[in-house]
Amino acid sequence: MELLDGKLVSKQIKEEIAVTVNKMKERGEKVPHLAAVIVGNDGASLTYVGSKVKACKLVGFESTLVQLPSTTSEVELLRTVKELNENDEIDGFIVQLPLPKQIDTQKVLMAIDPDKDVDGFHPTNFGKMALDMSTFIPATPFGILELLERYKVETNGKHTVVIGRSHIVGRPMSILMGRKGFPGNSTVTLTHSHTKNITQIISQADIVISALGVPNFLKAEMVKDDAVIIDVGISRVPDESAKRGYRIVGDVDFENVSKKASYITPVPGGVGPMTIAMLMKNTLLAREKHMLARK
Amino acid sequence: MELLDGKLVSKQIKEEIAVTVNKMKERGEKVPHLAAVIVGNDGASLTYVGSKVKACKLVGFESTLVQLPSTTSEVELLRTVKELNENDEIDGFIVQLPLPKQIDTQKVLMAIDPDKDVDGFHPTNFGKMALDMSTFIPATPFGILELLERYKVETNGKHTVVIGRSHIVGRPMSILMGRKGFPGNSTVTLTHSHTKNITQIISQADIVISALGVPNFLKAEMVKDDAVIIDVGISRVPDESAKRGYRIVGDVDFENVSKKASYITPVPGGVGPMTIAMLMKNTLLAREKHMLARK
Repeated sequence: MELLDGKLVSKQIKEEIAVTVNKMKERGEKVPHLAAVIVGNDGASLTYVGSKVKACKLVGFESTLVQLPSTTSEVELLRTVKELNENDEIDGFIVQLPLPKQIDTQKVLMAIDPDKDVDGFHPTNFGKMALDMSTFIPATPFGILELLERYKVETNGKHTVVIGRSHIVGRPMSILMGRKGFPGNSTVTLTHSHTKNITQIISQADIVISALGVPNFLKAEMVKDDAVIIDVGISRVPDESAKRGYRIVGDVDFENVSKKASYITPVPGGVGPMTIAMLMKNTLLAREKHMLARK
Repeated sequence: MELLDGKLVSKQIKEEIAVTVNKMKERGEKVPHLAAVIVGNDGASLTYVGSKVKACKLVGFESTLVQLPSTTSEVELLRTVKELNENDEIDGFIVQLPLPKQIDTQKVLMAIDPDKDVDGFHPTNFGKMALDMSTFIPATPFGILELLERYKVETNGKHTVVIGRSHIVGRPMSILMGRKGFPGNSTVTLTHSHTKNITQIISQADIVISALGVPNFLKAEMVKDDAVIIDVGISRVPDESAKRGYRIVGDVDFENVSKKASYITPVPGGVGPMTIAMLMKNTLLAREKHMLARK
């Protein structure tokens, strides 16, 4: 069994980006600039956005944090989005989800300039992805592809089973694994809450990508020998011995499944840390795109 | 076995649209107007476009045929697209594919205003489809959904196997069958040229959607009892007894598979005739959207 070590790989990616940014500086070029918009005071959201800003500093990007009160109206948020679209200093930006109830999330995501949509959630970018065009791939799926690529995990002709059809992970992952090229060319089955005989389907998988959010859902007896296991689940379970009173667990019974798997991502330290690294990579791509557009 | 009779259903749909158009006329409203652009003199393309114009007449739409010489440059075609985008008289338009070699097809499709893209090929519309938003669904997949809906074929929790990952049929079909709602909520497996053990996968399918283009590929021994069979293949095979010297056959060995299937589409007369009917439906939707936008 080999660990797909997201902590290690994400560190490498950030170092590679830092090298690129340094070269940009040496050439006197403007460095990539990411903006993050957060509405309200949700603790988890603040933590996520904080990590993104921290990662920007680490790789040498400029960053701007736009904090808006929880009472912000849709019109006000749309105005902020428009300003960021029009601001030439900003290469890419994200609007941290979830948004307060008074705001239509879809409307806001639709208002982001696709060329600055480093989260890859805009329909134009999502459609480009599904039509095999070059675009921003949402960070979590992009991170999974990067892990498979760096560890040279064979995907060609393999049967990949994706569990969960969310817009952020399951749906894009199911599309990406079936695209031409590497990582891709898999036969892909997308399963979800309406799937019957899910254990039978999983038992056939060469690669399992689980984005269900149910702790310890995937057991050793459910998977094939030498299967590749990608665990995207993040759940908090109470744990008195932990400082915060909980610990983070994935969808996979790691202790037992890891004995059977050929490759497996741990939780934490697998897919999670890759997400922010890939957001940095998308921001770098956005900068490079903008430079090309201006030539 | 029940026939999914595309010839019959497409006729019904066109009649329903004609009724709606008549009511529009009675209210003194502008009727839907479809434009079709064709570049060059490809025989099959001219036939397809001709059928679309004929269908417009039948349902009471206005139609405009823009015929350009095969020597048309990309710039010239893009200018035509721009004119159609800006022409308020035109509700929707299509650019008939394939285009001559000197023209970048992707660039042309990208230039079409998504609100007039009744073929549903623009990335923005494709992305909306993949993100469960309301949009124009490409005509062939839309026609398959309509057949499943009108015949009340159960799709919820069923295992749908799609054969072929083209942008026009396989890829969108795999997405649509896994979306929430009806027809949808299927567990979907997308297979393609890199798929191994394809017969084993097909043998598990409750619903098979074949868009391979290989005559008589799908044999009775490959499918489950009572499977639903959707045949999207269209191949010409030489036939001296036929007037034109060939006949049209699908991917499915209809004679034998039909004895095992619960529902099956014939070729011709199944999915084929649905395509033009759904293009008419998308054009009607485009008209209704434009009316709403002006209110």
